Amino acid sequence: MKKLAVVAFGGNALLRSGQKGTYKEQLDNVEQTCESLCNLLKRNYNVVIGHGNGPQVGNVMLQHEAGRAKGIEAMPMDFCVAETQGSIAYMIEMGLRNVMARNDIQRNVVTLVTQVAVNKLDPMFKNPTKPVGPYYTKEQADALAAETGATYREDPKGNGWRKVVASPKPVRINNIKVVEQLAKQGNVVVTVGGGGIPVVEESDRVTGVEAVIDKDLASALCAIEIGADEFYILTDVPKVYINFRKENEQALDTITIAEAKKYLDEGQFAEGSMAPKVRAAIMFVENGGKECIITEAGQLNNPHCGTRIVK
Amino acid sequence: MKKLAVVAFGGNALLRSGQKGTYKEQLDNVEQTCESLCNLLKRNYNVVIGHGNGPQVGNVMLQHEAGRAKGIEAMPMDFCVAETQGSIAYMIEMGLRNVMARNDIQRNVVTLVTQVAVNKLDPMFKNPTKPVGPYYTKEQADALAAETGATYREDPKGNGWRKVVASPKPVRINNIKVVEQLAKQGNVVVTVGGGGIPVVEESDRVTGVEAVIDKDLASALCAIEIGADEFYILTDVPKVYINFRKENEQALDTITIAEAKKYLDEGQFAEGSMAPKVRAAIMFVENGGKECIITEAGQLNNPHCGTRIVK
Repeated sequence: MKKLAVVAFGGNALLRSGQKGTYKEQLDNVEQTCESLCNLLKRNYNVVIGHGNGPQVGNVMLQHEAGRAKGIEAMPMDFCVAETQGSIAYMIEMGLRNVMARNDIQRNVVTLVTQVAVNKLDPMFKNPTKPVGPYYTKEQADALAAETGATYREDPKGNGWRKVVASPKPVRINNIKVVEQLAKQGNVVVTVGGGGIPVVEESDRVTGVEAVIDKDLASALCAIEIGADEFYILTDVPKVYINFRKENEQALDTITIAEAKKYLDEGQFAEGSMAPKVRAAIMFVENGGKECIITEAGQLNNPHCGTRIVK
Repeated sequence: MKKLAVVAFGGNALLRSGQKGTYKEQLDNVEQTCESLCNLLKRNYNVVIGHGNGPQVGNVMLQHEAGRAKGIEAMPMDFCVAETQGSIAYMIEMGLRNVMARNDIQRNVVTLVTQVAVNKLDPMFKNPTKPVGPYYTKEQADALAAETGATYREDPKGNGWRKVVASPKPVRINNIKVVEQLAKQGNVVVTVGGGGIPVVEESDRVTGVEAVIDKDLASALCAIEIGADEFYILTDVPKVYINFRKENEQALDTITIAEAKKYLDEGQFAEGSMAPKVRAAIMFVENGGKECIITEAGQLNNPHCGTRIVK
């Protein structure tokens, strides 16, 4: 029986800061990431991929905003996330197909457009905090807020005003049984792109909502629901550290969820960076997962890579 | 054993001419189309949906073009088609889930992001004819042609200059066995959106290409490959007509492929409208399909609807 792994990586693995984000750059980046992912296929894992979409959905929102001047309505977050699920998955499928061909690996790469349900009473909806899309002047932001009802907040770094949306918890992944079936048959499955298209499921009605679901939490939920053996969270450092970037910095090899929680309480992990990844790791292990590995893609050739969070 | 049907409909079923194409309009349109499709589910069919993306990809290209001024590269057709596969499928999934809930039907609706391979030696690449995206002045078109290498042609109706891309024949649908498996299990499967993401498959390398694949031909290929019993092509008239809109107009009930070819030769069916649909119907029946039904969505409640093209 093959091991089943869920691998989550950020949209910035494909569209890197400092790059312009041209199509060629993104294709090169995705192929490099796929080279790393291929190590799991060589070790005969069944693999499900959950990916982020931060920089990509930012570009989509900017394009929608620019298109408004030409008379095309700027679409809400659920629609924009759906667009990035299509485009990013296409690049991942293409990259992986090319890498697999070079490595003589035969697997289908299958992407499901994926809705992820959130609770409409999630307290985060009362306190939208996740900044998305382009920066505006205060006047522009006020006008947009009046026109669309969206919330805008000033960027703490002084870059201007940005739309903020809620980041509610994922509660149900649509078609998760199909994901499980396809993955266990050996297909590489791409799902919960950008954390999933955020929807609210009410009695007999599904509705899209303006929100962004954390892709690590959505991937953790996916890993739990399909009974994954391992959950990989890829980031830009090989391990998790305490006293990060201080003199007494220490890489962590294996930690229990109790230790992980203690470090979180101590503020060892930065919010918006390592902290949500460690929380997703804890969520997976607390709900029956054996181990979560936090590492960088380039380490996946080493079966003992990264920081392991275990029970 | 349930019957298996492939249903193809145009992107204009969702974004109608004369409408602005707001999100609300598109959601209303899609739900109406899904009400019609639901008739096949009530009659216990297994269903695969292939959809067009003409107006939607036009909007995406306009948004990309507008975004260029903000420094974001305008992406090529393969990327744009992938975006619309995500967004349109999301709307179809949502519409169908809502309609099924009202009708007490339990089916998963599963969308596969779908690459469709074309032959790089397809003669259409030497003669790109399919106009896509926004209109330009001759000066703008010349500048864009010089910058991007794309081909621009003057619109015959005098609206300006537009990019033209090739419309090559679909030769292989990626993951078609997965489509077949999921559909035969009872999942409603959405695939070959916008005719599929156009790619060329060479020895060990997949590459996206600037092209638009006819969605009726791609859906016909899908129907052949999965062994569909019936292939529905939805349009805006209830039947196919000869002497269309003339005094001696005649609706066709059932015609053989020999008759269909004769009418095509006579020029009975308009190019860019009914002619490609009849060709897709012939392709299906010539390759083992039992019958192709050309009709409008609103007729699907009638098992004897439309024009039937048979062997």
